[in-house]
Amino acid sequence: MAQVDLLLTGGMVVTMNGRFDIFVNGAVAVDGDSIVAVGEVGEVTAVYTARETLDCTGHVIMPGLVNAHTHIPMTLLRGLNDDLRLDVWLGYLMPLEREFVTPDFVRLGSRIACAEMIRSGVTSFADMYYYEDDIAEEVAAIGMRALLGQTVLIFPTPDSPTFEDGLILCRRFIEKWRGHPLIQPAVAPHAWYTTTPELLRACADLARGMDVPLHIHVAETKLEVDNCREANRMPVVPWLEKNGILNTKLLAAHCVHLDQGEMFSLKKAGAGAAHCPTSNLKLASGIAQVAKMMEIGVNVGIGTDGPASNNDLDMFEETRLASFLAKTATNDPTKLPAREALMLATIGGARAMHMGDITGSLEPGKRADVAVVRMDGVHNQPHFGHNPEAVYSRLVYAAKSTDVVHVVCNGRFLLRAGELLTVDEETAVGEAAQVAAQIDAFVQRREASPYNKLILLSGVERQKSFEVQIKVPIAEAQPIHDKLNSGDFDISKSSHYRQYDHYFLFDGNDPDAARLRYREDDYVDEHGKVYQSRSRLTLIGKGERVEFPNAVTLSRSRYLATADRSLRFYREYFAPANELEIQKDRFRWRVLYKGTDFAINLDQILQPELSGYFLEIKSRTWSRSDAERKAELISELLQVLGVETETAEKREYAEIAVGSGA
Amino acid sequence: MAQVDLLLTGGMVVTMNGRFDIFVNGAVAVDGDSIVAVGEVGEVTAVYTARETLDCTGHVIMPGLVNAHTHIPMTLLRGLNDDLRLDVWLGYLMPLEREFVTPDFVRLGSRIACAEMIRSGVTSFADMYYYEDDIAEEVAAIGMRALLGQTVLIFPTPDSPTFEDGLILCRRFIEKWRGHPLIQPAVAPHAWYTTTPELLRACADLARGMDVPLHIHVAETKLEVDNCREANRMPVVPWLEKNGILNTKLLAAHCVHLDQGEMFSLKKAGAGAAHCPTSNLKLASGIAQVAKMMEIGVNVGIGTDGPASNNDLDMFEETRLASFLAKTATNDPTKLPAREALMLATIGGARAMHMGDITGSLEPGKRADVAVVRMDGVHNQPHFGHNPEAVYSRLVYAAKSTDVVHVVCNGRFLLRAGELLTVDEETAVGEAAQVAAQIDAFVQRREASPYNKLILLSGVERQKSFEVQIKVPIAEAQPIHDKLNSGDFDISKSSHYRQYDHYFLFDGNDPDAARLRYREDDYVDEHGKVYQSRSRLTLIGKGERVEFPNAVTLSRSRYLATADRSLRFYREYFAPANELEIQKDRFRWRVLYKGTDFAINLDQILQPELSGYFLEIKSRTWSRSDAERKAELISELLQVLGVETETAEKREYAEIAVGSGA
Repeated sequence: MAQVDLLLTGGMVVTMNGRFDIFVNGAVAVDGDSIVAVGEVGEVTAVYTARETLDCTGHVIMPGLVNAHTHIPMTLLRGLNDDLRLDVWLGYLMPLEREFVTPDFVRLGSRIACAEMIRSGVTSFADMYYYEDDIAEEVAAIGMRALLGQTVLIFPTPDSPTFEDGLILCRRFIEKWRGHPLIQPAVAPHAWYTTTPELLRACADLARGMDVPLHIHVAETKLEVDNCREANRMPVVPWLEKNGILNTKLLAAHCVHLDQGEMFSLKKAGAGAAHCPTSNLKLASGIAQVAKMMEIGVNVGIGTDGPASNNDLDMFEETRLASFLAKTATNDPTKLPAREALMLATIGGARAMHMGDITGSLEPGKRADVAVVRMDGVHNQPHFGHNPEAVYSRLVYAAKSTDVVHVVCNGRFLLRAGELLTVDEETAVGEAAQVAAQIDAFVQRREASPYNKLILLSGVERQKSFEVQIKVPIAEAQPIHDKLNSGDFDISKSSHYRQYDHYFLFDGNDPDAARLRYREDDYVDEHGKVYQSRSRLTLIGKGERVEFPNAVTLSRSRYLATADRSLRFYREYFAPANELEIQKDRFRWRVLYKGTDFAINLDQILQPELSGYFLEIKSRTWSRSDAERKAELISELLQVLGVETETAEKREYAEIAVGSGA
Repeated sequence: MAQVDLLLTGGMVVTMNGRFDIFVNGAVAVDGDSIVAVGEVGEVTAVYTARETLDCTGHVIMPGLVNAHTHIPMTLLRGLNDDLRLDVWLGYLMPLEREFVTPDFVRLGSRIACAEMIRSGVTSFADMYYYEDDIAEEVAAIGMRALLGQTVLIFPTPDSPTFEDGLILCRRFIEKWRGHPLIQPAVAPHAWYTTTPELLRACADLARGMDVPLHIHVAETKLEVDNCREANRMPVVPWLEKNGILNTKLLAAHCVHLDQGEMFSLKKAGAGAAHCPTSNLKLASGIAQVAKMMEIGVNVGIGTDGPASNNDLDMFEETRLASFLAKTATNDPTKLPAREALMLATIGGARAMHMGDITGSLEPGKRADVAVVRMDGVHNQPHFGHNPEAVYSRLVYAAKSTDVVHVVCNGRFLLRAGELLTVDEETAVGEAAQVAAQIDAFVQRREASPYNKLILLSGVERQKSFEVQIKVPIAEAQPIHDKLNSGDFDISKSSHYRQYDHYFLFDGNDPDAARLRYREDDYVDEHGKVYQSRSRLTLIGKGERVEFPNAVTLSRSRYLATADRSLRFYREYFAPANELEIQKDRFRWRVLYKGTDFAINLDQILQPELSGYFLEIKSRTWSRSDAERKAELISELLQVLGVETETAEKREYAEIAVGSGA
């Protein structure tokens, strides 16, 4: 009789080995960090005695689950922003990450996430985030197995001002952790669209040079693929291949929108694909063709993605969903049956993470990564004995993560009879509440004003706050054209464009309340064709107005920002109480009159439909007295142009539009 | 101060009322079976004192969940058959239901199902099954609220030999339970394809006459809709409308494949639709257009469907999935946000079941149907306080059914601090294990032989077991045609067809082992066109052979059955170890030779491709001595036909095919 450290006896052992062996009344013998025997309980106990024997009668003894893609520190952002489009979600999230993501933050998030994963039977996972060195220290202390990918991208990140710094950080991280029994360091260029060829090649060289895996997002959304085709004239996988990425131990997350050729490339490269069904559904990214990838021979695993887009780390739910989606995506309910789904969640994920030789199944020689699951819940009754394989259905279609009783990783108990042994859950939850309170305060600041929301999204440029203007309705446009083009005026620039203004109103229809204008100018040539467009955001603060006989001076804070996202994005990000739309056809002249610069606009309001034209003269200044001087000059200019000023319109277009009931 | 029976205090009260009121530190006052007050704890306790106050601090107090479509007794069949196509699944299930479904069976299944539902926060559900009177007695005793639909269909059911009996049973059931405080009896014609117009009208009349709801499956699969269009020249909803069904308090389950017109019809009829996301995914039925139905104004609820196709009754999972699927189906992650998803699972379901006036939300005057959910699990951390609405996200995207702590239905505690009060769970689970053992034995009998599987599926006809045959390879076909058509023979029938044989082999390639043959005969006319087809199954038992000089006698049991399902169905139902395919072009003559009937086949084997032809002479008998006599006659007949018999092939085609490596 050989003496070992631990015997798990009496449960149904689901090995997930190459033959899918099941031992109905089985046992697993563990010595040190490894499994030394798996078999029927009689056979195993005939050979081994143990310092400790744990009776698992009635339970299932299975490999610890493998979460093949996540971002564990984002657990601290769980439920903060949901039901949003990806760009809006990132619009909220990225400023928050810039503000909050520190070594302490990722350590706390890791503790919470590991607690949740251990409770739900996970022993191994693949992460991608910042400060992975801090994450590694937490995870190693907690005792989970992990592939940890230090993120590198072109933008400044919480842990690196430039990608060159990121690469140095990544190399140091790998050097520190290479060869650790639990931690597999990895290079994680975030995605093709947040990197350059140079950066991708540097990451691939680093991964190859250090012989570590490379973890990257691949073809998560259709938009990403469309953009890649447009920018690089090829889909995502060939682009990565061209830049050396397929020549690494690749773990490709998502893989939602791949064509068959790309799947064959991944297979040929020995790459792993991490299928993230919940995240892909929740963000409406699509449904990955898992059945096809498996048919082609890609090593597919299942991941939860980060809890900020899931919103949990529950691999039981994820596995179940993976099976369901494969059936629906292929219109074939026989696809991805329970056994194969569980395969993806265990040995499949381990292979995808390039760890198939040490974990993912219960086999002698592998590390002892084991989950023990109770089967006596009323939600999992009854059990049919005629076919032992029915256990796969019970595990995948009916068992819950909360049925996990014991978890052993690398030979060490992490969960025992439902009690977490290596994470101080209560303290971590308390600290998380403190972080949540800080984030609450940050969000409240942000949500307090459109200004805060705008400034957190992008830099803003402050404009001169005094605007002097007059607006006169006129019946005929031609006389003005004739006058201004007669050569009598000092015209520095003239242009013609269609102007599309969307006003976001935050406080009813008060004309002087703060509002945000999204303006698109479509410049048209002499044939009426658009030859150039530009979009700008202007945040217009609450105004104070001074009316002169023939002009109005408005004092408002004005902040300009380039609108590099869609109107739809800004609408969802700013969530205005009301909106107002104005379209005009505008001829514009920049005129120098008595040494002062004025803008003259000849506008036809197309929406709301107003008859006739408006002649508008405007100038902007920082100074109140200068504003008064300009009001005088505008009166003169109007006389020169021969325009009657009695009917001057003192409202802004937005106010007229509100008045017209638009 | 008014005295009430129960105060739930200190939790966050999520009312799901018309304004979606949330009371962050709230209370619910219950008196008798009803809610008398809902509000902030200070307000409620200023007015009410209670015989009993339950502190719910840190928890969420919400309406009990509503499971809008299920078949609860099928809980006893959970996990028995998975990953099958619907027809194969029914092929296994229906014989089993014929054998096992009794009043005791449905009562036990109801106890198990109610235990699971109560544990997961459900207080109301809509059922459809047999013996609903027995189910009603169990459910009423347990104390849940339910719409119980007594199934009526044209086929014999476990509780009714004919549909006329079914209607009588249904009427009695309704008369007995009408007006019960918990049980709402209903008529449940199973679906359009298992009913006739006469039956549908009778059900509609019954439901209208008794003023009870009508529960029916609608447009679950695309095939169902295609069949309806073909059979009735209209989609499913118009067909039901034509037959009076929309003129009832309708609860339409599934509604996966509806067009917009059908949705408007449901809305106009005030009908409810029960969306069953898991079941629809698992059986690959498709994804219902829930966002569109809601936009149109249909009362949508969420159901788990029966646990035999789910495989659980977990409304938390179902609600979460409903939200995810709506996003993916519309390619829009803002669709069906958490609050709306929870709405469907509570007041939406109640409205769909025509019970919106008494349950589904926490409002004074409604019945006290309440679930209290703990929020302190590590999988639901942290909590953000800046927006109380975030509780919807926590409930839908992160909470688990196992987080339910207390459940009150109709003012009565069913679950308290995780303890079930009205179901003896342990006894029920023990009894379920006994039923499972009986089902195991039944399945083992069925799976013991292809014969048992065939006989459970359809009736079989036994054929004469002795077959005398000879098979001679010949180079030229024309001489045989000439001889047989010369007028020298007494030919009763001649025909020409293509014969497609699929052999299902169950025990390796042993030629004498039992096998099942699926044969399709395509009769061709003189122009080579197919004018008729027929398909048959022949189960061929293990053979014994006796070889004569010029013929072979085989003794095999042979069972014939009409093959009224597809080859694909039989393949999946019988799950053979191997398959063998043989195609031949066959001319066949029925010859009366010396008063004995023989079949003469002139075959060209097309697959596996064999050169030349085979002349085959066959006869069948019950008697061994008759077999010997016929073997003699075959020898004579061959001589008359001028065929050399030295090269006689003693194997059957299936054996030749195996030998040829096909």
